[in-house]
Amino acid sequence: MAKTLDFYFDFSSPYGFLAATQVEALAARHDCDLVWRPYLLGAAFKTTGRQPLLNHPVVGDYARHDIARTARLLDIAWQMPDKFPIMTVAACRAYYWLKDIDVQQAVEFCKLTYQAYFAENRNITDKAVLAEIVASLGIDPEQLLEALGDATVKQYFRDQVERALDLGVFGSPYIIVDGEPFWGLDHFDQLEIWLERGGW
Amino acid sequence: MAKTLDFYFDFSSPYGFLAATQVEALAARHDCDLVWRPYLLGAAFKTTGRQPLLNHPVVGDYARHDIARTARLLDIAWQMPDKFPIMTVAACRAYYWLKDIDVQQAVEFCKLTYQAYFAENRNITDKAVLAEIVASLGIDPEQLLEALGDATVKQYFRDQVERALDLGVFGSPYIIVDGEPFWGLDHFDQLEIWLERGGW
Repeated sequence: MAKTLDFYFDFSSPYGFLAATQVEALAARHDCDLVWRPYLLGAAFKTTGRQPLLNHPVVGDYARHDIARTARLLDIAWQMPDKFPIMTVAACRAYYWLKDIDVQQAVEFCKLTYQAYFAENRNITDKAVLAEIVASLGIDPEQLLEALGDATVKQYFRDQVERALDLGVFGSPYIIVDGEPFWGLDHFDQLEIWLERGGW
Repeated sequence: MAKTLDFYFDFSSPYGFLAATQVEALAARHDCDLVWRPYLLGAAFKTTGRQPLLNHPVVGDYARHDIARTARLLDIAWQMPDKFPIMTVAACRAYYWLKDIDVQQAVEFCKLTYQAYFAENRNITDKAVLAEIVASLGIDPEQLLEALGDATVKQYFRDQVERALDLGVFGSPYIIVDGEPFWGLDHFDQLEIWLERGGW
């Protein structure tokens, strides 16, 4: 039976964006099912008492350099958005609403949204931008705008965040497979070894 | 001309310990000179406003799991020391003092000291433990004990820490080559690609 990779990320996370460009090929190499699970890293920071790397003196400069360098290595178009970090709750709600309609389109939505933010410097907190992305997938943007304010959609996403925190998720990207957590794009190599060997 | 890898680490850093078991082979694969540069991560934390991973709820649990898992993968004997974290200033002073006498013995001292702390659960803040390590290298331990209180040795190490911070060093392990910083054992794969290609 195919294993499931649970891929947690925040739409405002540069390393999450880079990981999102790699994770499908990784899952395919190992015949794994992949579940995209956007959540709010900010909620995890409250629990862990941490802050975004980019907020820290010296470390932030390194991270900016490292993100750009990693993007170059992986041949990914990248620019630091003007507005950063941002609240990504609307994008997350949109994803979970779409997932209920069509999983594959919801995944496409994630990729397009990341692309819009980190490659095209578009403001993905803006519902009009999300509506445009959804429309490009052939889905009625009016339905999306309605869904974003829907109490059931809101509650569903709150539950998803709570579930992630209960599982100990605290980073972006953060992948769980076989109950084993792998934090960071940097840990994808260990994740691959894990999948190759079935653990160690 | 051989490139130089400047290898910064803290004797109290588990990931630094793991990296120390890998870094010589890495340097040898790429015909690089390797300079071991123990420093005080705590001094960097003051600048960056960060804390050890292990201090954070949730993240600390992950890190403990990840360190043990990585040690298993790399076949490195490992145990979490009873006393952790510790002040490593004496070990650092010992290293820089030894380096002045014999660089290779100073490197051996680093490896034995890390081994004593993270594989044998010995207290490397204890000067008697450091003296024993030095004696095992054939060096008079009395000379070491004298050197540890020597004003010139102390000042030299303070200067080394200041120099590291001036260079933006903030982690352990943290390697600089070609003026490019690579933070974390996890980044050794990118470091290897950098050395293979001469950058990208």
